[in-house]
Amino acid sequence: METWQRGIEVRPIGVVRSPRTEATDDDWGAVESTVELDADRLGAGATAGLDDFSHVEVVFVFDRVDDAAVVRTARHPRGRTDWPRVGILAQRAKARPNRLGVTVCELLAVDGMRLTVRGLDAIDGTPVVDVKPYVVEFAPRGATRQPAWATELMQGYWHAG
Amino acid sequence: METWQRGIEVRPIGVVRSPRTEATDDDWGAVESTVELDADRLGAGATAGLDDFSHVEVVFVFDRVDDAAVVRTARHPRGRTDWPRVGILAQRAKARPNRLGVTVCELLAVDGMRLTVRGLDAIDGTPVVDVKPYVVEFAPRGATRQPAWATELMQGYWHAG
Repeated sequence: METWQRGIEVRPIGVVRSPRTEATDDDWGAVESTVELDADRLGAGATAGLDDFSHVEVVFVFDRVDDAAVVRTARHPRGRTDWPRVGILAQRAKARPNRLGVTVCELLAVDGMRLTVRGLDAIDGTPVVDVKPYVVEFAPRGATRQPAWATELMQGYWHAG
Repeated sequence: METWQRGIEVRPIGVVRSPRTEATDDDWGAVESTVELDADRLGAGATAGLDDFSHVEVVFVFDRVDDAAVVRTARHPRGRTDWPRVGILAQRAKARPNRLGVTVCELLAVDGMRLTVRGLDAIDGTPVVDVKPYVVEFAPRGATRQPAWATELMQGYWHAG
């Protein structure tokens, strides 16, 4: 085994508290949830200055996905046979290696170790492993391009529901 | 300990091969590197269809950061006393809990399990734990706002160097 292949233990820094308790594909846009951070894990002041940012990037674990369910072959996203078969690294689906989710959402309020956010597509009880400020310079450099199926898939994703 | 607090083992899916071997603050814009993925870990076809996307989001581990160096108190970013003291979750600095980095970079080529990218701010040998396609609908919903210090910090970050 090479050095880079070694397993790395990630310890959650907080948890999502959301009205959504079941994973659903769409209508995440209006969902308001909180990220309850662990002060013991993070140290005091971890969120100082965060309220100067309008958005945060939340890194979380799709912990309800079983390891055995992680996709290892190309497949039609959402089973839609009118869309092409693509690999798991060409999708943002949750049944992915290491089960990590990354979503930029609107930061509505910061109250010490409690963040209120809108549009976080993670269900109640989801472990959070990082929160980063959204910095516009981290947006893609250069024009972006994506296949039509990805645009179609996203049509109802942020719908206010 | 609550369920969500349990440690989670992350197993790298690949490694960064980069001309940059030392962590430096700036001038990442023109850096071309490769992400060498592990076919045994991922299964065949993991990258099928990825070349229809112009950009990928790479999730990696700042493995050269020692756990003891992870910042637990508010501090001036880059030691710049003319910038405010902020918490580690209000910065994208590498000495952060779980040491995870997330960067959107340009995808220049896909050759099986080898991705060629431009603008990946990770040094040679960095373990990669996820690759996601950049989908424009995952950009921030609504206008963004960030403090002046963050904009100043980013001034030379993507400079062609």
